[in-house]
Amino acid sequence: MIRNSTDEIEVLIALMAKLPGLGPRSARRAVLHLIRKRALLLTPLADSMSEVALSARECLNCGNVGTSEICDICTDDRRANGELCVVEDVGDLWAMERAGVFKGRYHVLGGTLSALDAIGPEELRIPRLVDRVTAEAISEVILALNATIDGQTTAHYIADQLQDQVKLTTLAQGVPIGGELDYLDDGTITAAMRARKEI
Amino acid sequence: MIRNSTDEIEVLIALMAKLPGLGPRSARRAVLHLIRKRALLLTPLADSMSEVALSARECLNCGNVGTSEICDICTDDRRANGELCVVEDVGDLWAMERAGVFKGRYHVLGGTLSALDAIGPEELRIPRLVDRVTAEAISEVILALNATIDGQTTAHYIADQLQDQVKLTTLAQGVPIGGELDYLDDGTITAAMRARKEI
Repeated sequence: MIRNSTDEIEVLIALMAKLPGLGPRSARRAVLHLIRKRALLLTPLADSMSEVALSARECLNCGNVGTSEICDICTDDRRANGELCVVEDVGDLWAMERAGVFKGRYHVLGGTLSALDAIGPEELRIPRLVDRVTAEAISEVILALNATIDGQTTAHYIADQLQDQVKLTTLAQGVPIGGELDYLDDGTITAAMRARKEI
Repeated sequence: MIRNSTDEIEVLIALMAKLPGLGPRSARRAVLHLIRKRALLLTPLADSMSEVALSARECLNCGNVGTSEICDICTDDRRANGELCVVEDVGDLWAMERAGVFKGRYHVLGGTLSALDAIGPEELRIPRLVDRVTAEAISEVILALNATIDGQTTAHYIADQLQDQVKLTTLAQGVPIGGELDYLDDGTITAAMRARKEI
């Protein structure tokens, strides 16, 4: 079966190896595991993937991934508190939701501005963001972009677009909880020092 | 969508997190990747899993995983060369096939003997192995079990069963190709030293 590359199992291994975090070796291991747990895992996983392939869609309003045209967060009136959190990616939105600290709505850009990759404001739903600020009576836009050069460039561009229309904030920078100074980069230590607070 | 635990996407994340090598965080990342590559990856993967769930089966003769009652290796007459390689697991069989050095047939035990887990010879296809040695006119049984205590205990048990019926061999132990002495355990160095060869 290993020699016949058209074999169903080989096809599955090749597909699994395309997942982030799995290489060819771990894909083989995962497929063997799936075959052993056919009823408990392989069949449910196949069914679940088919369902998600049919039902998953991007929220037309914010870019979140869900199973309806407008996502649960955008349809939840309790979250219309005037705060709008701008993130690069759906993964970042999920991370914010896990933290559970933010009670407003999101706007998912779907990446960062990049001259090299020809990604301009239109590709990133930035015009839609500007529209939403007015349409949803937003009072504060929180730019929760990654602390990378591309993320910060994009944050500056958005800040320019929304200047004087709305309160603009960004996440605080500093020492992460549980972080050891010895393992932090100089930039983080500098940022934490500059933003030091009286206790 | 993150708050509704019956959501299809949450179900898929929970199932993916059960794969070896993926935790909750990497499962979320994988699912986002799948949703983004719906046509290229998610749908083909779902279809491939359904197919494998229906077609994958253990070879009745050797325990290999394939898509027919008797696997390709067992039906290939060119591999009836009198050599039988005993491995613990299908993953080990695949590893041997990748190396491409062995041209005979396999016998997959499906584990190792373990008094603690109540795994005896019957659970490991050992009676079937003894039958095959006679039925398939095997001249050499290569015990390619893992160099762990359980693997070696099982190898000794099998060797006892087949004593005087057939030539018994095991894989050579020594320094792995590309291995640095400084990073090898004492047992490997001892084995390599004892089995040293004249050049």
